[in-house]
Amino acid sequence: MTTKPERADRGVTLADIAREAGVSLATASRAMSGARGVSAATTRKVRAVAERHSYVVSPEASGLSRGSTGRIGVLTRHIARPFYAEALEEIESVLADHGLDTVVYCVRTPEDQHSFFERLPARRKVDGLLVLALPLSPHEKERLDLLDVAVVAASGQTADYPYVSIDDAEAGRQAMDHLLRLGHRRIAMIDAIDPNASEWPIELRSLAYTRSLEAAGIELEEDLFVRVPWGAEGGAEGMERLLSLREPPTAVFIHSDDLAYGALRVLRRAGLEVPRDMSVISIDDAPMSELLDLTTVRQDARLQGRLAAETLLAMLADEPYQRARLTPTRLVPRGSTAAPAR
Amino acid sequence: MTTKPERADRGVTLADIAREAGVSLATASRAMSGARGVSAATTRKVRAVAERHSYVVSPEASGLSRGSTGRIGVLTRHIARPFYAEALEEIESVLADHGLDTVVYCVRTPEDQHSFFERLPARRKVDGLLVLALPLSPHEKERLDLLDVAVVAASGQTADYPYVSIDDAEAGRQAMDHLLRLGHRRIAMIDAIDPNASEWPIELRSLAYTRSLEAAGIELEEDLFVRVPWGAEGGAEGMERLLSLREPPTAVFIHSDDLAYGALRVLRRAGLEVPRDMSVISIDDAPMSELLDLTTVRQDARLQGRLAAETLLAMLADEPYQRARLTPTRLVPRGSTAAPAR
Repeated sequence: MTTKPERADRGVTLADIAREAGVSLATASRAMSGARGVSAATTRKVRAVAERHSYVVSPEASGLSRGSTGRIGVLTRHIARPFYAEALEEIESVLADHGLDTVVYCVRTPEDQHSFFERLPARRKVDGLLVLALPLSPHEKERLDLLDVAVVAASGQTADYPYVSIDDAEAGRQAMDHLLRLGHRRIAMIDAIDPNASEWPIELRSLAYTRSLEAAGIELEEDLFVRVPWGAEGGAEGMERLLSLREPPTAVFIHSDDLAYGALRVLRRAGLEVPRDMSVISIDDAPMSELLDLTTVRQDARLQGRLAAETLLAMLADEPYQRARLTPTRLVPRGSTAAPAR
Repeated sequence: MTTKPERADRGVTLADIAREAGVSLATASRAMSGARGVSAATTRKVRAVAERHSYVVSPEASGLSRGSTGRIGVLTRHIARPFYAEALEEIESVLADHGLDTVVYCVRTPEDQHSFFERLPARRKVDGLLVLALPLSPHEKERLDLLDVAVVAASGQTADYPYVSIDDAEAGRQAMDHLLRLGHRRIAMIDAIDPNASEWPIELRSLAYTRSLEAAGIELEEDLFVRVPWGAEGGAEGMERLLSLREPPTAVFIHSDDLAYGALRVLRRAGLEVPRDMSVISIDDAPMSELLDLTTVRQDARLQGRLAAETLLAMLADEPYQRARLTPTRLVPRGSTAAPAR
């Protein structure tokens, strides 16, 4: 179809290549695989012969002898959300720099996730797995352990795997302190839950909300805390619920930027001005937040992806690594927050 | 590290599994790989024995016998840009539904791309390759053909590979006709080029710009056509150049949404109001465009990804497929365009 079969000498074996290049089979093998211990000149000679015959090393065959697949899996719920996409792009970059391929396993639904873990033991297709912001159940961890591959959790802690994450409680405190310092007292929170997750151990961002209010001597009002599904639609729903209150809040702390985008849309459609009528802050600093002038607490998705990939590489190389790494967050004040008008 | 080695019986071979299950080696192999010709009961029995011993099929070994890797590569310049991320998420979904793994090759720079193609013939790691919005040079196509795998171009036509794309000339016409119908005569274009691409065959969007002006009897002004690198920063630069003109345009057609976001930011900072001071239209309808109230011409990244993956699957299965598929685009009028004020 897209190929030119007449160019490929299908019958040629590595032994033929070695003979024609005048080297041993072992040397030819090392030259083709890029292993050390072969001179550059020999490598060039062997590869030139191989190329003349369109000979390609079967990665299956060479993988068997290496005892590794040369691949790392990334298990995630999303690819297209900015945070996930940025972390994935960075992970791929780190792994590619180390000659490893990135295989993406995107489990969108509980059914996808179930099926992924049920089919796991039948195949050992990767040397390691990065679990990207996805909580695993004890049963899923058991299945994963059967695989006997290195596992690192990125952007979230799960089971007892080494992990790279932010301190969600600290990020939440930074957001709440900003609103409190501006003088807000009537502060709401739109919290997000993953509707597909069986469990997420601790809700540190909402814990920061209640603790900050407590520390400021402000009584918690049940109506001001709403919990919605992930995503812009969830944020929109949360804001609609807050605007339906007899007395809406003057400020809202939103779980993450993509929810805040949905909330901002509802505010605009309701004819309300940000920050005059309501201050809005969230956590992430996704690429669009600067354009939308959204005050947020910045976390670095790329850094988390990079450190998680590097941790996995250290595990695979039997080098020392940190079991827990927290990446910093910081307040990014923009135009969506101000002192309350009333 | 994360494993429980005592659970895995490392010495167990497929022959042991076959013996314990009371079946032939060939039957055990077929049962483990899910091939046809084995009863469900036998498959269950063999797999139960295998699971008891934590025996896993080496995909390398089974791949050799199948003559396929079970993997499809996606070659792309970006992961984190919305258009690419959405197409990739859909591609992964289609392939996973067919039991195939997705390997991502992200070539960020000309050096990455060069290195990818130079190392190509040494490894045949995938059964097929989806080239995502990436123009290939004749030399790169030659290298790719050596691999002898099926190739499909998604979101852009390259070499003579089967492709799925939009009609860029038609999308450009839809955008320009909208501005012309609103009464604009002084229309600029911010065109985008991939600074890393050696060549992109035909600039159909800019061709639509000049053709539409011609058809409307409007003389082309050189100053009103600016060409910038991809991305929001490029769009910002383009708008800065247009605002520096003695007489800026009343409307601008921008190559794609992410550039338009940068242009909108410059307009806001310059204290200009959209659409009163300038109408803005682009092409894409990325997820953020609704929130930003950006008039745009919608193309469906997910549909292009899906159709490209399905085309590749048909090629691999030796089934008929369309060599060229164009997906529709349509005008999405929002608040960033209006009749000129002056």
